[in-house]
Amino acid sequence: MRRKEFAVDEQQEIDQFLGEMSFGILATVAESGYPSATPLNYVYTNGNIYFHGSRAGEKIANLKAQPYVTFCVAKEYAIIPSYFTDPELACPATAFFKSVVIAGRASLVEDITEKAAALQALMVKLQPEGGHKPILADDPAYRGNVKGVAVVRIDVEHLTAKFKFAQNKNEEEKAPIVEGLRERGGELDSETIGLMQKYCPYHNGSSE
Amino acid sequence: MRRKEFAVDEQQEIDQFLGEMSFGILATVAESGYPSATPLNYVYTNGNIYFHGSRAGEKIANLKAQPYVTFCVAKEYAIIPSYFTDPELACPATAFFKSVVIAGRASLVEDITEKAAALQALMVKLQPEGGHKPILADDPAYRGNVKGVAVVRIDVEHLTAKFKFAQNKNEEEKAPIVEGLRERGGELDSETIGLMQKYCPYHNGSSE
Repeated sequence: MRRKEFAVDEQQEIDQFLGEMSFGILATVAESGYPSATPLNYVYTNGNIYFHGSRAGEKIANLKAQPYVTFCVAKEYAIIPSYFTDPELACPATAFFKSVVIAGRASLVEDITEKAAALQALMVKLQPEGGHKPILADDPAYRGNVKGVAVVRIDVEHLTAKFKFAQNKNEEEKAPIVEGLRERGGELDSETIGLMQKYCPYHNGSSE
Repeated sequence: MRRKEFAVDEQQEIDQFLGEMSFGILATVAESGYPSATPLNYVYTNGNIYFHGSRAGEKIANLKAQPYVTFCVAKEYAIIPSYFTDPELACPATAFFKSVVIAGRASLVEDITEKAAALQALMVKLQPEGGHKPILADDPAYRGNVKGVAVVRIDVEHLTAKFKFAQNKNEEEKAPIVEGLRERGGELDSETIGLMQKYCPYHNGSSE
């Protein structure tokens, strides 16, 4: 990341974001040499990313050939129009967002207990209200499906979090953005103001 | 794409989705051999993807070394819990979404007129309400900034759209999903029901 002021190091913040978001984009390198990109639901548990898919799919073929993958989870909070801070020029237009980019080695999980645990963790995340038998490796109702599905674990080698909420601006520069967001009152604008305050290096006492 | 029933071929549908969405994930191949993934705002115009960034950034370095890139735009509409269709097993849990994956060759735009036009198209898309001087190459107020910023064009070589809204299910199988979404009444659930009807191969008369 070129702009260090947007980097987030707190593991708790990162865990929370990865827990809140339901899907990310898996980037793999295809045999053609092109990168490949696939949106997929995931769970981040025990420090690893897990996802599932068909054994016959392209992404499984790609990661068998080249196990080094990158997984990106991103959420845009606000488009900041230029006129919040400049009555004339378009240049200040920007966007505030959170993103986490994980580079790691992907491998097919073959251990049936780990597979079942990963699938159950995925259910707990995406269907927290329950409403199904828990997925257990020794449950005959699940055994065939657990064996049949491909479960992939990404062992995280490098994780970068970028939360961009005007940390590069001082209070005076931020004031009209806060005012603009408050006036606009979009769905995420109030939350965005809170995040601008939360990640402000002047507020939280950490240095840039 | 392995499951052909989710493929969307109508250019108008694809254009509309790419116009509605504000950001996508750019996948490049880094010199390390790892794929790299970066969220960024974009505009899709004249059949090409354009985005801008710093000339000093990592993504620009990557695409100079390896110009074949993939760009993915995805929106999740609904997590479909297993209990909509199965009182016991977790297996039917799924997600409905739209995604477009574009593979193409990326190049730095050096022509100042094309750069200004791309930046102006980006503004029209993300700040449709205006509120700024239009970006024109020959405007002295913009010339320096337009020259200084990196603008990248992806010449689309291959585009795949996947809109997954239960096209693989018949009316009887879809009924409890529609009922579940209606009862749940989440933010996008009503729209999701509309999309299930719209993309239903039995409704629109096209074959699978």
